Amino acid sequence: MKAVVFESEENGATYNEDFKRPEAPDDFVEISMKASALNKRDDFILKGLYPGLRPNVVLGSDGCGIYEGRPVVFDPGINWGENPDYQSPDYHILGMPQHGTFCEKVSVPGTNIYTKPSHLDFTQAAALPLAGLTAYRALFTRAGLEAGQKVLISGGGGGVALFCIQFAIASGARVFSTTGSKDKQDRLLKMGLEGVVNYNEKSWDKDFSSEFGQVDVVIDSAGGDGFHRLINLLNPGGTLVTYGGTLGKSDNISPQVIFWKQLNIKGSTMGSPQDFIDMLQFVEQHQIVPVIERVFPLSDFDRAVARLRSKDHFGKIVLTIS
Amino acid sequence: MKAVVFESEENGATYNEDFKRPEAPDDFVEISMKASALNKRDDFILKGLYPGLRPNVVLGSDGCGIYEGRPVVFDPGINWGENPDYQSPDYHILGMPQHGTFCEKVSVPGTNIYTKPSHLDFTQAAALPLAGLTAYRALFTRAGLEAGQKVLISGGGGGVALFCIQFAIASGARVFSTTGSKDKQDRLLKMGLEGVVNYNEKSWDKDFSSEFGQVDVVIDSAGGDGFHRLINLLNPGGTLVTYGGTLGKSDNISPQVIFWKQLNIKGSTMGSPQDFIDMLQFVEQHQIVPVIERVFPLSDFDRAVARLRSKDHFGKIVLTIS
Repeated sequence: MKAVVFESEENGATYNEDFKRPEAPDDFVEISMKASALNKRDDFILKGLYPGLRPNVVLGSDGCGIYEGRPVVFDPGINWGENPDYQSPDYHILGMPQHGTFCEKVSVPGTNIYTKPSHLDFTQAAALPLAGLTAYRALFTRAGLEAGQKVLISGGGGGVALFCIQFAIASGARVFSTTGSKDKQDRLLKMGLEGVVNYNEKSWDKDFSSEFGQVDVVIDSAGGDGFHRLINLLNPGGTLVTYGGTLGKSDNISPQVIFWKQLNIKGSTMGSPQDFIDMLQFVEQHQIVPVIERVFPLSDFDRAVARLRSKDHFGKIVLTIS
Repeated sequence: MKAVVFESEENGATYNEDFKRPEAPDDFVEISMKASALNKRDDFILKGLYPGLRPNVVLGSDGCGIYEGRPVVFDPGINWGENPDYQSPDYHILGMPQHGTFCEKVSVPGTNIYTKPSHLDFTQAAALPLAGLTAYRALFTRAGLEAGQKVLISGGGGGVALFCIQFAIASGARVFSTTGSKDKQDRLLKMGLEGVVNYNEKSWDKDFSSEFGQVDVVIDSAGGDGFHRLINLLNPGGTLVTYGGTLGKSDNISPQVIFWKQLNIKGSTMGSPQDFIDMLQFVEQHQIVPVIERVFPLSDFDRAVARLRSKDHFGKIVLTIS
């Protein structure tokens, strides 16, 4: 079958038209794939930055397809475990070390399958699972965002960040963002954000607070130098959720700011089966349509990755399969 | 009346036998003081490190005495506000800018007064309010400590830390600590702690994890270089509460550790009226007796402060008044 298969850190992944379909575990079912979508995780794997890499594994976590004649999406997470607060040591997601979604037939546990939201076509639905799950857990399960609260979502052009923005707007929150270009600022403001600042400006944090005041919730995936600035932007009792650290470790964290304002800093990654169910329900209730940057055929995987790596992409990059 | 009165950053505070009793607001009641206790906060004020300093103010936040013939303790916090999650901008505690407890007569809002726990004498009860409140909120309201969990309390000799330790042991948690001397290690182990490491050892964090594993809750008041090490010691889903930052800002904070382990880092300071009520009830239920380092007469305030500043003090320093 057609598949994008990881070879090694040196050689990355290759598109293969004759990949031998792997056997699935007994309690797994097989889905005929229609579309898939890229995540930063796939790029981390290609760059050798993900733990437990193995050769000859089909990449890809996101996707949708047909199971027993009906259109389905599926939770990419396997073995979350018993505790909703954190994943078990056995938790993993499709696309390493288990075969993933960049292929014609995917095997997943039967309990991971859900009916595709009817307002989304296959291309849109493929963009939803992992990024939507990550956004939902960060925003609602972990930050507890409520209608009327002010939320600042950093890096507004990214896949997860855009879901955070769409979900937050749909929930009735007042939504703000940071981003790296004038073009993205304009696009975000058109989506209904109340304010967007450019994080390349040296005093973006002071600009933000003088124009928009402080916020109740921050969702961040960058870490690095921005982290303590984002903490400073929180109202008393406020919550920052981090779900990524693309800019690395953070310095200058002030315990005084954290304790005096009774702040909460929480980590979040992916989400539990219940988060996935709640996310799908929210998407259907609010008729959320994922923001898609561009659609490539599976055979153009290399061009799709190049697009993911470009700084000016805005939204999810989708791969069509059949 | 006898009082310890703050003069200025240069001159500190002086013991005065003829301090003119200030008039109290209308809804305040007057307590005849029996004993008071020092907090780090008093020392921050003496060193000019507290915001909003004013001359001619009686110092002191903690105390107990007699009101209408009955022995009472009182919540040192005024105007917490409506939200249990954080204090209002009007919140302050006795002893700056409002007159405090290092004197013969103290005025407090009538609603702040509670019957003194009967198992404590005045010297012991005076040591309880601010440190007990801070410990209770950090440990239970914010960290949500439960019986059977492992909790690491840093700086085990301090006033608040010792209440954390006593409360945690009483609640059925497995309690660990860090401290700075062999003598304190021995004293802590005698109190029923499961393990204590010396934070002056370069690899104290690795020593801790190799001997005792990871923990569910950390309570810290130091910040600085230890902060990221304490975060690393948390189990998945674990919670660190900071209520102080004596070692200043913290570097090397890893977003990856926080999000992958779904951690919670929370700030806590003092406590709400409900925290105070819950703390008193807990102390009575478990017959907690504060650890007292030494008792001085009010007139020996200077010696009491010197003792507070010495690194080897262990427990609360109490001032007797009448």
